[in-house]
Amino acid sequence: MNSSEYRYQILENWLLQGIREQRWGLGEKLPSIRELCKQQNVSKATVLHALSRLEAQGLVEAKSKAGYFVRLQPTAVKRPQSRARIEAPRLANISDLLLDIMKRSAAFDLLPQKPTGEVPAGVMALNRAIGRSLRRQKGSGYQYYDEPAGDAGLREQLAQHNIKRGWSVSPEQLCIISGCQHALFLALMACCKPGEVVAVESPGFYGVLQLLEQLNLQVVEVPSSDLTGMDIDALGEVLKRWPVRACVVSPSFATPSGALMPLSARQRFLQLADEYDLAIVEDDIYADTALERVPDPLKALDTNNRVILCSSFSKSLTRDLRLGWISGARWHEKILHLKLVSQLATSRFLQQGVADFMADGSFTTHLRRQRSYLRANRDYLIASLQAWPGDVRVSTPQGGLAVWVELPEGVDTQAKYTRALADDIIITPGPLFSISGQFRNCLRISYAHPWTEDRAKALACLSQLLLDAS
Amino acid sequence: MNSSEYRYQILENWLLQGIREQRWGLGEKLPSIRELCKQQNVSKATVLHALSRLEAQGLVEAKSKAGYFVRLQPTAVKRPQSRARIEAPRLANISDLLLDIMKRSAAFDLLPQKPTGEVPAGVMALNRAIGRSLRRQKGSGYQYYDEPAGDAGLREQLAQHNIKRGWSVSPEQLCIISGCQHALFLALMACCKPGEVVAVESPGFYGVLQLLEQLNLQVVEVPSSDLTGMDIDALGEVLKRWPVRACVVSPSFATPSGALMPLSARQRFLQLADEYDLAIVEDDIYADTALERVPDPLKALDTNNRVILCSSFSKSLTRDLRLGWISGARWHEKILHLKLVSQLATSRFLQQGVADFMADGSFTTHLRRQRSYLRANRDYLIASLQAWPGDVRVSTPQGGLAVWVELPEGVDTQAKYTRALADDIIITPGPLFSISGQFRNCLRISYAHPWTEDRAKALACLSQLLLDAS
Repeated sequence: MNSSEYRYQILENWLLQGIREQRWGLGEKLPSIRELCKQQNVSKATVLHALSRLEAQGLVEAKSKAGYFVRLQPTAVKRPQSRARIEAPRLANISDLLLDIMKRSAAFDLLPQKPTGEVPAGVMALNRAIGRSLRRQKGSGYQYYDEPAGDAGLREQLAQHNIKRGWSVSPEQLCIISGCQHALFLALMACCKPGEVVAVESPGFYGVLQLLEQLNLQVVEVPSSDLTGMDIDALGEVLKRWPVRACVVSPSFATPSGALMPLSARQRFLQLADEYDLAIVEDDIYADTALERVPDPLKALDTNNRVILCSSFSKSLTRDLRLGWISGARWHEKILHLKLVSQLATSRFLQQGVADFMADGSFTTHLRRQRSYLRANRDYLIASLQAWPGDVRVSTPQGGLAVWVELPEGVDTQAKYTRALADDIIITPGPLFSISGQFRNCLRISYAHPWTEDRAKALACLSQLLLDAS
Repeated sequence: MNSSEYRYQILENWLLQGIREQRWGLGEKLPSIRELCKQQNVSKATVLHALSRLEAQGLVEAKSKAGYFVRLQPTAVKRPQSRARIEAPRLANISDLLLDIMKRSAAFDLLPQKPTGEVPAGVMALNRAIGRSLRRQKGSGYQYYDEPAGDAGLREQLAQHNIKRGWSVSPEQLCIISGCQHALFLALMACCKPGEVVAVESPGFYGVLQLLEQLNLQVVEVPSSDLTGMDIDALGEVLKRWPVRACVVSPSFATPSGALMPLSARQRFLQLADEYDLAIVEDDIYADTALERVPDPLKALDTNNRVILCSSFSKSLTRDLRLGWISGARWHEKILHLKLVSQLATSRFLQQGVADFMADGSFTTHLRRQRSYLRANRDYLIASLQAWPGDVRVSTPQGGLAVWVELPEGVDTQAKYTRALADDIIITPGPLFSISGQFRNCLRISYAHPWTEDRAKALACLSQLLLDAS
């Protein structure tokens, strides 16, 4: 660690202690950046770094031109502490049990699939837009395939949506695909050859691990924090030791913890990528689930055309649309070609329906409404977990759809999977998020669904099931 | 050639001459099978083979328990004669021009994409069914992915649809995918490793050639007839000489000619496949475009679980649905896994809409209506081509959406592609259907679209453009 990192940590801890001791109460303003520089004798960059970390934890919030305010009391929310081991790259060999878990848990629900409640207004509006698009289809249009890159109208809407996020992109740089998993698949097929090494976050998204297994790519896991995502120092070590071709990363609200990579880390990440000529596959699917401001994508900083951005509507709107987008940087032509030979085209009426839904502002309205719903779900879940007995640690994500829970050493979440299933509870055990059997005492719990009585009961049950010594 | 093939050819030519000379007029009955055996002193198998070949040419039709009747006068329809060369397997290297042609010509239209006319009743009914399915979505259903194999209701409907065609299949043996090209992609990924050799029809489907190029598979072309499809004797030669891992074949109405492989050839094909332990990828997408009876799939004869059936709704219903199905034989689990990692799931509301459309008989009604439309389109096209000057040869398909046209030696359809484009006419030159630059004097012309004034004019223009000596 260099001295500047040491300084921001001292400052972060000092501020944290002040918030805990209520030196600054809920809703109150922290000292200004200038005051902090002077009081603590540190640079402005150090102060900003410390504040951005507290912001990432949801403890403070920046108000434009007014400064930083306390927004959460860090009562007893203890952060997960286990850190992934770095091991030599190897081919993944994922067990059938983990495959079964993946199939079931992709729904992000503690309960087996059972549609309940109301269809949200946003999804209703989307369905109506698709219905209108269907009725609008004319003449022999059904006899033509859409162009491989996808509907120009939808790409235009997506470009506008991204430009608002600080990424200046033209519709020509986008290709419509069948969901984010499809984007990750095409990206890795385009930039890697079988046998090459791909770096991933650890813990990280199981769908990527499965994909790397099927594409015969070697995996090297880079330790990731629940707060700031992939550890860039550790990545640097890995790059020194092994010939890494590509890195799959989710800088905004990485699953399972919902970590948000700070700007400084993103910059260092891209410097390393330049140094080692890495291809970066950015999984940006959770960006629009931000509880506060939607972060810029890493792609916005990509001056060397090496970040392939992958995303879809599955986490922010509906899992049943099966539409996503990819921007393939220097591999874009290759990706278009792979889409053509593997799928020919995407449904035009579906894309036009979604484009209309975006154009009339319904998507923005939906995202705004969803934000408060997700925040309430998250807060309930964290509060419930704090009531669990023993040393239970949990991430406090500012986006995403899940928290990462670390239970006492000795708890084996994978072993409890089948037992939970017998009680009609589906858990997502920690080992799913690694290829090396790590994180046995961890699990991911989603807050995508409302805490209905059934689900709240399942959550309570789970505490007994996992922590009961018997 | 062995003596039994010689005998059926003599008989076929004798019958052909009789039909030409109107010994048996249009609609009249041919001598019975028993009479033919006796008169010509040949076996029943020889008579049936000759009759099945005349049936495949559309010249006679079998009426149940009544015998064979003359159904078309073979005025001056001359069949294409050029035969593919057999060359050693190699990696495909498809030029950018051919890629451009493929993108444009995938629409099967002489004119640039311009939706005209009415939406067919069948497609309207489908769109309404999808609209109803959208309105029926309940509660939190949008938050779940569909199961990887696809909607059980749609798989049930597809199983019933196939059972009517003589293939006894259970819904568990089917997986829903994003169109037939996606099925071919998954099939080849599942049964071949990069560098292995795949046999294809020549001329054959350009989409497969492109796919083999992208998957780094070696291609060996097997000569194919416009009448009976892949030449099984030639396949036998190829299998003796090179280590072929898989064979992609379209026994029912192979593009470009619309050839139909006779039962005897299918049986010999499967025997060879057993002998050399081949994986067979059956592209069955044109089956439902049959002008008469829908042929059984090759898969119906597959006793050793080695035929992967691939199909979709794109040729029989609409190109914009992007739904197909695959039955992966011994590779089915692997294919399900590949679908999961490459695409996760398929849209449930879309599948349920299509399932309803099939369940209420609308699909069957649509196919019946489409048959007479396609027959009229085909007949107009063949009649027009017969009026072209010089030695113009054309296939007479009993299904599919196109004819294969052979022009005099020296005509270069690929060279004329850009010239035609300048006149707003899109042609599909012969070299697209091979990796070795063969078939330069050939092209495929589609009859998927009605011969409106515009299109008829384009067809007339084409004759000048291709055959004008200047």
